[in-house]
Amino acid sequence: MVIKSIIKLVTLAAVVSFSVCENAMAQNVFDKSKVEASMVKALEWQEAHPIMAIAPTDWTVGAYYTGVARAHAATKNQIFEAALKNQGYNNNWQTYKRLYHADDVAISYSYIYLDMTFKRKDFVNLKPTQDFLKAHILEPNKWSDGTAKNKDENILWWWCDALFMAPPVINLYAKHTKDESYLDVMHKFYMDAYNKLYDKEEHLFARDGRFIWTGSDKDMKEPNGKKVFWSRGNGWVLSGLALILTDMPENYKNRPFYVNLYKEMAGRILELQTKSGLWHTSLLCPETYNHGEVSGSGFYTYALAWGINNGMLDKAKYLPAVKKAWVALTKCQHKNGMIGWVQNIGAFPEPASEGSWQNFGTGAYLLAGSEVLKLQK
Amino acid sequence: MVIKSIIKLVTLAAVVSFSVCENAMAQNVFDKSKVEASMVKALEWQEAHPIMAIAPTDWTVGAYYTGVARAHAATKNQIFEAALKNQGYNNNWQTYKRLYHADDVAISYSYIYLDMTFKRKDFVNLKPTQDFLKAHILEPNKWSDGTAKNKDENILWWWCDALFMAPPVINLYAKHTKDESYLDVMHKFYMDAYNKLYDKEEHLFARDGRFIWTGSDKDMKEPNGKKVFWSRGNGWVLSGLALILTDMPENYKNRPFYVNLYKEMAGRILELQTKSGLWHTSLLCPETYNHGEVSGSGFYTYALAWGINNGMLDKAKYLPAVKKAWVALTKCQHKNGMIGWVQNIGAFPEPASEGSWQNFGTGAYLLAGSEVLKLQK
Amino acid sequence: MVIKSIIKLVTLAAVVSFSVCENAMAQNVFDKSKVEASMVKALEWQEAHPIMAIAPTDWTVGAYYTGVARAHAATKNQIFEAALKNQGYNNNWQTYKRLYHADDVAISYSYIYLDMTFKRKDFVNLKPTQDFLKAHILEPNKWSDGTAKNKDENILWWWCDALFMAPPVINLYAKHTKDESYLDVMHKFYMDAYNKLYDKEEHLFARDGRFIWTGSDKDMKEPNGKKVFWSRGNGWVLSGLALILTDMPENYKNRPFYVNLYKEMAGRILELQTKSGLWHTSLLCPETYNHGEVSGSGFYTYALAWGINNGMLDKAKYLPAVKKAWVALTKCQHKNGMIGWVQNIGAFPEPASEGSWQNFGTGAYLLAGSEVLKLQK
Repeated sequence: MVIKSIIKLVTLAAVVSFSVCENAMAQNVFDKSKVEASMVKALEWQEAHPIMAIAPTDWTVGAYYTGVARAHAATKNQIFEAALKNQGYNNNWQTYKRLYHADDVAISYSYIYLDMTFKRKDFVNLKPTQDFLKAHILEPNKWSDGTAKNKDENILWWWCDALFMAPPVINLYAKHTKDESYLDVMHKFYMDAYNKLYDKEEHLFARDGRFIWTGSDKDMKEPNGKKVFWSRGNGWVLSGLALILTDMPENYKNRPFYVNLYKEMAGRILELQTKSGLWHTSLLCPETYNHGEVSGSGFYTYALAWGINNGMLDKAKYLPAVKKAWVALTKCQHKNGMIGWVQNIGAFPEPASEGSWQNFGTGAYLLAGSEVLKLQK
Repeated sequence: MVIKSIIKLVTLAAVVSFSVCENAMAQNVFDKSKVEASMVKALEWQEAHPIMAIAPTDWTVGAYYTGVARAHAATKNQIFEAALKNQGYNNNWQTYKRLYHADDVAISYSYIYLDMTFKRKDFVNLKPTQDFLKAHILEPNKWSDGTAKNKDENILWWWCDALFMAPPVINLYAKHTKDESYLDVMHKFYMDAYNKLYDKEEHLFARDGRFIWTGSDKDMKEPNGKKVFWSRGNGWVLSGLALILTDMPENYKNRPFYVNLYKEMAGRILELQTKSGLWHTSLLCPETYNHGEVSGSGFYTYALAWGINNGMLDKAKYLPAVKKAWVALTKCQHKNGMIGWVQNIGAFPEPASEGSWQNFGTGAYLLAGSEVLKLQK
Repeated sequence: MVIKSIIKLVTLAAVVSFSVCENAMAQNVFDKSKVEASMVKALEWQEAHPIMAIAPTDWTVGAYYTGVARAHAATKNQIFEAALKNQGYNNNWQTYKRLYHADDVAISYSYIYLDMTFKRKDFVNLKPTQDFLKAHILEPNKWSDGTAKNKDENILWWWCDALFMAPPVINLYAKHTKDESYLDVMHKFYMDAYNKLYDKEEHLFARDGRFIWTGSDKDMKEPNGKKVFWSRGNGWVLSGLALILTDMPENYKNRPFYVNLYKEMAGRILELQTKSGLWHTSLLCPETYNHGEVSGSGFYTYALAWGINNGMLDKAKYLPAVKKAWVALTKCQHKNGMIGWVQNIGAFPEPASEGSWQNFGTGAYLLAGSEVLKLQK
């Protein structure tokens, strides 16, 4: 009987102290130090669980280290610096190999960031990046030529993910080399993608040509009859725009196009946030997979917080949404640091789960944190 | 006085809650999710503590990743997939270098598994494995020639560990390439080893020629006068047989030999299990090192559970032994995930300790878990 | 009301049990197993957070793995062995590239240690180390020639850190190859540094020529008017001397010089220990950055404990200081194993913080632990 009452006591005490703790967390989740601590835990878990699709220079790794680079820029925490330098050194500063494929240069964002930030002579080697970019932009290839077998692949950046993979890299390289001509070529290809994939009524990007409605019965539809707009796909675009605008010269002639597109998409994304604070994998049919998904949501949280921090978005209107999103994102982080609820590699809405993770999901979380911790300024 | 009574209270409560917890664990240790969680912790600890004898392509690493491959096959958990891909990529799909030495191709089990499972074009490169296997099987060498200085080394696979290192790899490669001729050559060398090392009375393998009794006074004896049969050595053979039978065609002409050998050894191993549930390093003289050892025990647990799951062994007879073994194995896992009580690299019975670990011990644990979690079906 | 009283109870209990725990720790902090456990945690955190200045063969990594090597020598714990072998193998046994620069051969201490300790044929390759040492010692270069632009750089080892980077490596290589001529050349260069940088009144080393007083108004001064002596800089020298004396033959003709220098500096360092048990970054002006710093303090703790263990220092006089220092060092280790309060890469006194870390700081901690755990003998 004594033992029983003690068990009750301990159980009760545990419940009480848990509640106290939860409360405290809710109050402190925006403290700069809490945000940074959560980001560090995410980084540590991800570094201990390296993953790739095909190579440590592929786009999955590239997107992750873009998040790490922004995390470093925001915090100057050496733990992010060390991770960035290790991967660049171990990759020997190489891109992946398909010179016509935007995915394969995403990794270079981190290389250029390192070179610009640390200015360490004989450390970063940007020659492979330079070679890639020149070939990517200037040399004829089956996509930009329109000679690819798949007729949906008739422009260089024929899928919307590409707008995260290459343009922010080209943009940062233009800044680093002070060569605006890179921006001009980037803009030409960006416009091709915009003209092909952007839905001017919905203010969202189709993932690729398969999802553009032609008026035919064969048009891809969600169960509720609406168009298919993929959360992560639009997350690539919107967060890519925030990355581009961060480093594009204020007076660059085409900057207004990117500002306008950013604002227009941001407004639409705000409307589509669900009650939980997260976005589901299908933006217009959230009921298909009825749960928040972290990669898309992380990209949106980053992009919207960035807009608030940079005077692009109305704080009164957007801040509550960003706060709600960040609180929800932190609940997707496991106790060991892992970022769960990430849809696996794909090209359209598919479900995630508590235990599903990918390096680019961690990257999206780091991007989000990198702007959320500036909100308290 | 108040403080003293609180200390007592807290201490008592801690004891109580510990007992509750222990109880709960005993009940749940076979839950699929508990088994998988334990395997993931083992993998995570091992990945954070890479170790090798001489190279990251050596047999210690090979045996570990064979365990990781089976863990992935059983769970489809991406954490195992990522670890497998990383090591293969980082090893550039190379074997180790001695083409006549079975040890040096053990790593290829994981490469072939990856290629068969993910079918990712331009990722796995099986050319080095193919080159190794052809040279290993077809080219004359000092062992298969019988020209080695050491007269105990007069067959290709002159030590019983080799029957884990090469045959399961050849067998899986035969399946992948649908080329049964590999099985025929494998069988020839396997029979050489069987004829030389298998003790038809004890139904156990001598580790190598040094341990075969010739009737001389110089024959190696345990302190109790019995023959020396090494737990891990026989673990290599029995778990190797389970691996082989998993992928050998049902109708392959020599399959009955492997089935019979498997069943015969399994029966003997069952008899030799100690009360603790684990096997000691010396099978016939368990009192020499009076504690369970995890690498041999892990291999046996895997092999016996596999036999139950595949209808090779009588469930009523073997299941209690497997359950007892798994419970005992889980107690050798430290709180941080580390698998202890593993005899270090060796060639005959030597002691282990709570803190002794090796990657192949973790591999044995993963193999065991990979079949234990199917027991609940 | 019931809930409130339980919260109080739990809080009180927590405080009580914390005090008990603290007490227990204070009593046990010198237990060999506690020291080793703390070293293992430090190693594990550091291995999970690889960092470098410019390459995984640079001096920061070299100093770290020198600590790991001594940790292995003291404990024979396989966790240190595995880390040493991994880095050597992954570095392909290369030094860094500037053959005239002492920093770039520091990594070879770990390579030589591995080769001497494990004697594994075809594993360690000491050819790059041999090539480096020959070029470093024998080939003319801008520093030993006195042709460097900077007139402070007119000897081979013109900054005191160098006395940790190269001489212990040359000394160990001389022992391994049984070639005393290496010691003779080392001694020549060591004397150049001693004659230039050692302050015979203060019994401390100037970091480099900039800090040597010439009687001019431009002489570098601390705010309190004293000379600038850097804690880590002198830590490099004193711990380097302990490393050298560990492996220099007892009957080597110049050994008395090193013994005398070691004892003289040790006496001065003892005087400069602060009340907290640690040394501050500025030895003669500890008030500038008013906190203990771990890299210098770790090196001193190692060197003083080594002197006690090897009969070089008076135990009654030095042991209390070493104990106080170790207790203070352990308080700089975070719960996750990280060693904090390490001044970042630099060349003179600068502050550290609870969260500042570097691999060589971890190395200093491991060195300290490697001798502290022998104190209980």
